Amino acid sequence: MIQLTILGCHSATPRADAYPTAQVLDIKGELMLIDCGEGTQVQLRKQKVKFSRLSHIFISHLHGDHYLGLIGLLSTFSLLSRTAELHIYAPKGLEEILKLQFKVGHSYMSYPLIFHTLASSEPETILDNEKLTVETIPLDHRIYTNGFLFKAKVGDRKLLIDKVLDLNIDKAYYKSIVKGKDVKNRDGKLINNKDITEDPKPAHSYAFCSDTAFKPNIVPQITGVSLLYHESTFLEEQEHLCKKTKHSTAKQAGIMAKKAQVHKLILGHFSARYKDLSLFEKEAKVVFNNAEIAEAGKIFRCD
Amino acid sequence: MIQLTILGCHSATPRADAYPTAQVLDIKGELMLIDCGEGTQVQLRKQKVKFSRLSHIFISHLHGDHYLGLIGLLSTFSLLSRTAELHIYAPKGLEEILKLQFKVGHSYMSYPLIFHTLASSEPETILDNEKLTVETIPLDHRIYTNGFLFKAKVGDRKLLIDKVLDLNIDKAYYKSIVKGKDVKNRDGKLINNKDITEDPKPAHSYAFCSDTAFKPNIVPQITGVSLLYHESTFLEEQEHLCKKTKHSTAKQAGIMAKKAQVHKLILGHFSARYKDLSLFEKEAKVVFNNAEIAEAGKIFRCD
Repeated sequence: MIQLTILGCHSATPRADAYPTAQVLDIKGELMLIDCGEGTQVQLRKQKVKFSRLSHIFISHLHGDHYLGLIGLLSTFSLLSRTAELHIYAPKGLEEILKLQFKVGHSYMSYPLIFHTLASSEPETILDNEKLTVETIPLDHRIYTNGFLFKAKVGDRKLLIDKVLDLNIDKAYYKSIVKGKDVKNRDGKLINNKDITEDPKPAHSYAFCSDTAFKPNIVPQITGVSLLYHESTFLEEQEHLCKKTKHSTAKQAGIMAKKAQVHKLILGHFSARYKDLSLFEKEAKVVFNNAEIAEAGKIFRCD
Repeated sequence: MIQLTILGCHSATPRADAYPTAQVLDIKGELMLIDCGEGTQVQLRKQKVKFSRLSHIFISHLHGDHYLGLIGLLSTFSLLSRTAELHIYAPKGLEEILKLQFKVGHSYMSYPLIFHTLASSEPETILDNEKLTVETIPLDHRIYTNGFLFKAKVGDRKLLIDKVLDLNIDKAYYKSIVKGKDVKNRDGKLINNKDITEDPKPAHSYAFCSDTAFKPNIVPQITGVSLLYHESTFLEEQEHLCKKTKHSTAKQAGIMAKKAQVHKLILGHFSARYKDLSLFEKEAKVVFNNAEIAEAGKIFRCD
């Protein structure tokens, strides 16, 4: 299971009804934060996310609308007497900024804060545990920027309990069976694993790509993901602004989704110049039909 | 005229309905920001403050709930192509933090940003222009902290136009008359200024005192101010928490207002532990009757 909660999906300046980039991703109970614009901690409360459970925070790049809410959130964890480790994955510079802020405020955190500094221009695996892996997706923006590819790991095989009982298999073997092993039953007969299990649920994946110019060379890395979030700061009419600002249009996001044969495309990082956000969905759908705009509070789930 | 707009008045962690410290003060059209917790720029928009007109920003101390909204606000000014000078008065450390954030984000501001670093433990005049003066009020908190005393300057005397016309005085003298000068009329007769003018409106003043332990030795400096904002993080029942945290109770704020014979007391910086904020007003009023709690969006005005 993966579940993505949008906390904010607008570019640049926060406004009363427009929150900068921040998302919570839940993969099999592992709760992770992706980007953390100003006001994220208030959004976490509004969306009723149990944010004390956050274990890993991924920051794509050091433009303010993607990280300025982090220092406040870290301080709040400390006020709430957090003790669990917190891992932060971010470009060079963030650790220095945060440590300077702690220093001038004579603040110290009540929990271990572990920094993972990202500097490579090639994809790298930055997290690998029993539930998932996370890879960086090098993007093309005005400053050093990574997207992130989250892949849930395939779970155990599903035990067909009726067959197992029929075949007189000892309960002690169940753990081995769900791992795919053939076992002997109480009569000493070897039982083929495929006869007593089903394939596990498919392992879903999520690719987060913000902020970036159109960058088709990442397609092989993100091909086949369940969910792709791709920025669409502009509509095609303003494509000329993409070159200087290193952003994408909704159409380009649609092209990426199509090329990568993803299951669903989520659009976000909308420029404040647009009032009618449905135009983004409309533009992307011309190229790739299963497209939807992000919105604060929206939840995308793959079971 | 002075007008104070409360943007936020809660301590520590921002929540959906509780904004950290930030206030806008308008003295004769000079628009100033006092403290700038996370989310201040959104509050400025919500309260419909014309924030491009802000000319001076005063930061009391470098705990996050008093300054974390500043970097985002400064960036927004730049996105909006501000060109006017902006002055920031803050303790040592803030300039370094902001400059590091600009550096890592490859950002530059579109306008001149002028830092005034505060380091003295004695009151000092940090701004003196034709409309007002601003002095620091050294406070007693866990880190170096200043309050600020804003004093509007007495305006011109008020011309009594009927008398001036009756006395056959040339229009060319009006500017001298409002400055208090005696002038000769067209018949060569010396006219006493007091006969043709009224006293100007009283010059109001505002003292901002947050965050601080009870510090009665600042009373002489703030005596007689029109408005006193004094923090009241706790109620008397939790006075034991004040010593360690260097905060005050509502009762202590009331005592300060009474000792300093101020016109009105405004309470703020409430701890999140309290649900019923009317208790703060009630507690302060036992000592000083003209007390009122701050609230986001509330406006206090002295004409």
